[in-house]
Amino acid sequence: MSGREPGTLGEWLSAGGPEGDVVMSTRIRLARNVADYPFLGRIDERRKAALEHSLREKLGACLDAPVYHDLEAATPVDRQCLVEGHVISRDLAQGRGARGVAVGPGGVLSVMVNEEDHLRVQVLRAGLAPDEAWAEILAADRRLEGAIDFAFSPELGYLTACPTNVGTGMRVSVMLHLPALVWTKQVDKVLHAVSKINLAVRGFYGEGTQALGDFYQISNQATLGRTEEDTLRAVADYVPHIVAFERNWRRKLLAEHRAGIEDRIWRAYGMLERARLLTSEEAMEYLSALRVGVDLGLIGGVTLAAVNELFILTQPAHLQKLAGRELDTPARDEHRAAFVRGKLARLN
Amino acid sequence: MSGREPGTLGEWLSAGGPEGDVVMSTRIRLARNVADYPFLGRIDERRKAALEHSLREKLGACLDAPVYHDLEAATPVDRQCLVEGHVISRDLAQGRGARGVAVGPGGVLSVMVNEEDHLRVQVLRAGLAPDEAWAEILAADRRLEGAIDFAFSPELGYLTACPTNVGTGMRVSVMLHLPALVWTKQVDKVLHAVSKINLAVRGFYGEGTQALGDFYQISNQATLGRTEEDTLRAVADYVPHIVAFERNWRRKLLAEHRAGIEDRIWRAYGMLERARLLTSEEAMEYLSALRVGVDLGLIGGVTLAAVNELFILTQPAHLQKLAGRELDTPARDEHRAAFVRGKLARLN
Repeated sequence: MSGREPGTLGEWLSAGGPEGDVVMSTRIRLARNVADYPFLGRIDERRKAALEHSLREKLGACLDAPVYHDLEAATPVDRQCLVEGHVISRDLAQGRGARGVAVGPGGVLSVMVNEEDHLRVQVLRAGLAPDEAWAEILAADRRLEGAIDFAFSPELGYLTACPTNVGTGMRVSVMLHLPALVWTKQVDKVLHAVSKINLAVRGFYGEGTQALGDFYQISNQATLGRTEEDTLRAVADYVPHIVAFERNWRRKLLAEHRAGIEDRIWRAYGMLERARLLTSEEAMEYLSALRVGVDLGLIGGVTLAAVNELFILTQPAHLQKLAGRELDTPARDEHRAAFVRGKLARLN
Repeated sequence: MSGREPGTLGEWLSAGGPEGDVVMSTRIRLARNVADYPFLGRIDERRKAALEHSLREKLGACLDAPVYHDLEAATPVDRQCLVEGHVISRDLAQGRGARGVAVGPGGVLSVMVNEEDHLRVQVLRAGLAPDEAWAEILAADRRLEGAIDFAFSPELGYLTACPTNVGTGMRVSVMLHLPALVWTKQVDKVLHAVSKINLAVRGFYGEGTQALGDFYQISNQATLGRTEEDTLRAVADYVPHIVAFERNWRRKLLAEHRAGIEDRIWRAYGMLERARLLTSEEAMEYLSALRVGVDLGLIGGVTLAAVNELFILTQPAHLQKLAGRELDTPARDEHRAAFVRGKLARLN
């Protein structure tokens, strides 16, 4: 159960994925708890450690070739790498005590141990792929169910630490890249409509994080009193409307303001190619514009998958892993600029 | 007396010139009036036209292969090109009635007819070259004096339309590029010191224009009661102090803030290489940074002379001459970006 680097970028992102021009990724997670143990808010350290130990073994046995990262033992940079790769939550990284994550091949499937719930099962897919993700997580859930006795009520469904997850324990999230709607100041209108149909909008790194670089995450709110299929369809059927809206505006902007749009995109490219210091925020902003440029066919030689990777690889912990040492903010800005510059030079 | 294009860039700028890292150009002009004619403020149109006609002929006869531009007949774009090339003043371009300019080979020598005075003789040289410029303008002045009876008083010296020019009628101006002093906010201190020793500070296009892109023009104020040599020395001997100050700060910035300075310069280069729309102000700002980058050896393949040319060739009228038609502001921004981009691509 070891061998791969923590935070190694999963295949899920390297693939472009369906509707990859607007949809960065689809994520499904299931919250699960073990029947014989108290919820984590009321557990003592000894039993929490015993739970982690037991789950670690069971995950090793019933998942396909997982790598387990012991997050209590991991360095802060390794933990942060997993956050940046969307493999674990910030809460799990910043938590205390016995906890970990089992990651399947390519980073598609991961199971967090002792996050808010005993288990958080997650599948990540590039692009808009709710049905594939659902099939994969269902298969994993069934294998886990064969080995673990989950806390379940026939009336309520799966029992979870937080009441908002009771029922299916399921969250479907789609990460959208909406630069044209941001640039034309229409994104608030869209997000308002989203919230009206009981979907939530979150930032680039999930709950409580900010939308960054024109990225918005749409996910379901309700988990109680509706089936998994309903939840899936509620998100999956709504997203194509936003995708079409974003696409239309990209084309419209290009048709009606070609010089301005080309200028914006090529300036971003020039900054990425030439800057010697790049903050995290700047990298997000310029990569966002570059992503549109690739989609609109303005910039050749660069693929969406390559840009997607850069979003992750230019994050602070990934830069420190690449450098092989801790870097303060100015040093990170220098490494980030050098990394992006080198990458773009190799692509051309 | 024709053949060369109006506003063609003079050789004076294409050469790098002494102290070319900080000194863009040296200019000397002499104000002269013809004894038999009233000053231009009190002349009627008929006599003004007769004066212009007579001077045009005399300039043709006593200068070496001049091209005469009739500015009453010239198009606004052609007039503006001559302003942008520093060949004529804005006042002459925007004036009315019979007026013109005779331009010698390479644009080094030019003689304006019916500007504020009947004649304004000018020599332009790249870099800090006061002695060469003085030798050239003296030779030209002597040839003109052999053909024209100048208004001269044994007590006061040359008589001029404006009392501030009476005496020598001479102005020595040095165009300085002071980015390090601007970036470190020390330029005001320097300019204050300059004004204390009775030198004037002017903008990129002379009297009444703004300092632009970190360029400052230093020139003498007094023309009365001092010799030409004194005037020349007052400017020429002071400039090297500013040059040394600017140079030290460029080195100091590079030594102490290398990443920040490289970042600033390479970002400017990235904008010039990649932008699809460039305003005049942006071009000045980025070219200014590029000029420092070339001087500090950070950017190879580009010469100071090439950057100097770009300052002029990216001005509005030059862009319109290149395009062969009138361009509104957005179209100029597009042409400017395309021109700079093409130029830098050819240099690399």
